[in-house]
Amino acid sequence: MPISTAQLDAALAHADAHIGDSLERLRALIAIKSISTDPAYAAECRRAADWLVADLKSEGFEASARPTPGHPVVVAHGPKVAGPKVVFYAHYDVQPVDPLSLWNTDPFTLTEQTGANGEVQLVGRGTSDDKGQLLTFVEACRALKATTGSLPINITLCLEGEEESGGKNLPPFLASAKDELDADVALICDTDMLDAETPSITTMLRGLVGEEVIITAADKDLHSGMYGNAARNPNQVLADIIASLRNPDGSVAVEGFYDDVKEVDATTADSWAKLGFDGAAFLKDVGLSIPAGEQGRSVLEQTWSRPTCEINGMIGGYTGDGFKTVIPSKASAKISFRLVADMDPVKIRAAFRAHVRARVPADCSVEFHEHGGSPAIAVPTTGKYLQQARQALADEWGREAALRGSGGSIPVAGDFKRILGLDTLLIGYALADDRIHSPNEKYNLTSYQRGIRSWIRVLAAFAQ
Amino acid sequence: MPISTAQLDAALAHADAHIGDSLERLRALIAIKSISTDPAYAAECRRAADWLVADLKSEGFEASARPTPGHPVVVAHGPKVAGPKVVFYAHYDVQPVDPLSLWNTDPFTLTEQTGANGEVQLVGRGTSDDKGQLLTFVEACRALKATTGSLPINITLCLEGEEESGGKNLPPFLASAKDELDADVALICDTDMLDAETPSITTMLRGLVGEEVIITAADKDLHSGMYGNAARNPNQVLADIIASLRNPDGSVAVEGFYDDVKEVDATTADSWAKLGFDGAAFLKDVGLSIPAGEQGRSVLEQTWSRPTCEINGMIGGYTGDGFKTVIPSKASAKISFRLVADMDPVKIRAAFRAHVRARVPADCSVEFHEHGGSPAIAVPTTGKYLQQARQALADEWGREAALRGSGGSIPVAGDFKRILGLDTLLIGYALADDRIHSPNEKYNLTSYQRGIRSWIRVLAAFAQ
Repeated sequence: MPISTAQLDAALAHADAHIGDSLERLRALIAIKSISTDPAYAAECRRAADWLVADLKSEGFEASARPTPGHPVVVAHGPKVAGPKVVFYAHYDVQPVDPLSLWNTDPFTLTEQTGANGEVQLVGRGTSDDKGQLLTFVEACRALKATTGSLPINITLCLEGEEESGGKNLPPFLASAKDELDADVALICDTDMLDAETPSITTMLRGLVGEEVIITAADKDLHSGMYGNAARNPNQVLADIIASLRNPDGSVAVEGFYDDVKEVDATTADSWAKLGFDGAAFLKDVGLSIPAGEQGRSVLEQTWSRPTCEINGMIGGYTGDGFKTVIPSKASAKISFRLVADMDPVKIRAAFRAHVRARVPADCSVEFHEHGGSPAIAVPTTGKYLQQARQALADEWGREAALRGSGGSIPVAGDFKRILGLDTLLIGYALADDRIHSPNEKYNLTSYQRGIRSWIRVLAAFAQ
Repeated sequence: MPISTAQLDAALAHADAHIGDSLERLRALIAIKSISTDPAYAAECRRAADWLVADLKSEGFEASARPTPGHPVVVAHGPKVAGPKVVFYAHYDVQPVDPLSLWNTDPFTLTEQTGANGEVQLVGRGTSDDKGQLLTFVEACRALKATTGSLPINITLCLEGEEESGGKNLPPFLASAKDELDADVALICDTDMLDAETPSITTMLRGLVGEEVIITAADKDLHSGMYGNAARNPNQVLADIIASLRNPDGSVAVEGFYDDVKEVDATTADSWAKLGFDGAAFLKDVGLSIPAGEQGRSVLEQTWSRPTCEINGMIGGYTGDGFKTVIPSKASAKISFRLVADMDPVKIRAAFRAHVRARVPADCSVEFHEHGGSPAIAVPTTGKYLQQARQALADEWGREAALRGSGGSIPVAGDFKRILGLDTLLIGYALADDRIHSPNEKYNLTSYQRGIRSWIRVLAAFAQ
């Protein structure tokens, strides 16, 4: 159902005029502590899903929270109209907020503050990842509905509550809801822009393998005076294993790790070269100066097209105040691999476990726990919807939309392809300095407001 | 003031007859949560000191809790009598109790249970280390006072409250109280027996250097997808450093670490050989089988006469339930070195810090915190008091008292020599399986009762 330029302008004007109301809705959603990885917050996740269902119903969507073995998936169908159908994906769950002491304001109270360049920042857990991004689309629909009486195309929303905790319940859910999620293209709003002025469509995403490793040495904690030297120290064993994961040149030392890694094609390499990405500035922005990955690879390659192994957490022994001369019984680490191109998560997980097992002393034992696994994905850079979206973004931001890679993993893009047969457009308005997963997470007001406007334009473009 | 054989027998009989009362006093002291390393328990440490002062006063000691910048030192003087003077040292503070979930009973409720060989075990934090050992001496004095009306020699008690937390306030206190602590010999009750049947005097103790290392990479926590590979991961840096502390042959890799380490003399080596120590059984008892220290060294050497480096605690990143794809800003470890013979704590600390600094990437920073430092000590194996005590122990246990080494550190023995010019006899009744510093710490009723009896005999012997 194509809409006129006047209707488009009216929808954009409506979004701007009602940005205060849009912010109040974001405030309400941020206030819900939907930390999916911590079982203590299960009821809050449910509450976030219910809030979204109610809000979408108020816009005329047929919406409901669908149960899963974990947190619910919100599914909402817009009015049936002439034209293409899209499935929009975002997630309503958020990361834990620890260390709480590093937050300057309450993480669940949306707080406006002014950034170094005068920009208005919306501070709070999930403002950028991903509640704010999620609402840019919902608010775009609201503005279109308010001004045109309907939506320009067929829209189904699929909002997940377990993206930050492995998301293992989504693929079976997608399979079970295959028919109602049938569409021409999928849209995902969980990525960032190249910089604050350059709209971006992400076409390469790294995959993920998450592992937890627990080393057990003695069958009890020991006094390090009485046993020190003779008794195996699991902290030392674990540190030795972690150290063995990287070669001196920064490459990952797991056998066969690079077997399926390919160089990016010339077109992509050329397009990346044009981005003018400043690797030194990227690192300097977080207080660093030396790329830590493979020597000879640029920061862009290290984060977009090269796999990595990261120690996300490790703990063993006494870590409280003061000192305790203990040799603990156990030490553990949470380790993740980011995959690229054709790397197989199953193969990488097996190679990692073999690497670890080969390094565990004979009188110690090791236990593994799986925390998610997904291959990398590459979105085709041709196709009607991508071209239309690219133009719509350019119209909004006054600048060509970049086609970029991303170091993060968005397993659902792979799931959409594999389970629903859908290609995905990854469009988001977050920025690299949004401090996602960290204290004082923020989303620029500009990201929120122009994100809403961008989606209005994209949806209008799809209706032509 | 020599006492007769009849008086000695009466005192021993009195101790046995009143063992129930002695246990009630131990129960009361165990109930006080004097965890010195945790500031939250400062008032409990004070309460333990006050309890001891009151108890010692009730026995006729002139006792008081002396303030220090940390927890108080209890000093008590017995009646002035003819004969030699001893200073007795033990400590009333205890280790933290975490992980609490691994305790079978409340750590601060003295609980009797029957061990595998039918022995009665007194379970609770501090039963063995060191409240139970402390009270063996106090109860010995009580029995002697009750049966002879006085004490056979001049006795001063010096009871510390910071042994488990670095003990940095004790040396200045000893210096300030030099005159009233003047004595012929010092006694320390904080060591164990070779086995449940063999009384032991410890003549070699390892020293200690405690260090906390904090590595900082980025100035904030980062998303491991967005930054992974390019941004330095402090968990990886710390693990690399920890791994570098040990050579593949099990030796410590810090430069110059073994420069001042000497082989034990032939007499000591010969005496140790006679102990019939079963290294395999020692390790098997805690679920291990492979000595982890320097290859070619026995378990006895590894724990008594060879220095070590132990990772007592390490932490970095997300360690809660679930998974968080974070690259933390910081990672830290608590690391201790056990020293032997002539190793200099100052030199070892400096060498360790240099070792770490050389391995910190240029865009990361490192911070060190000192947690105690003391040299190893070797007590002369000749001398009147040692011979008298050895005979008294043999009289009680019906077996020659072993002269042994110990892997643990008791800095106060070095302080007594350095500050007060005193030689020390280290006599204790703990056992290797007492689970000190671990959940379900215990002290055998036999250790407690025959410990009391042993001290009665030792004090009587000194009076001859």
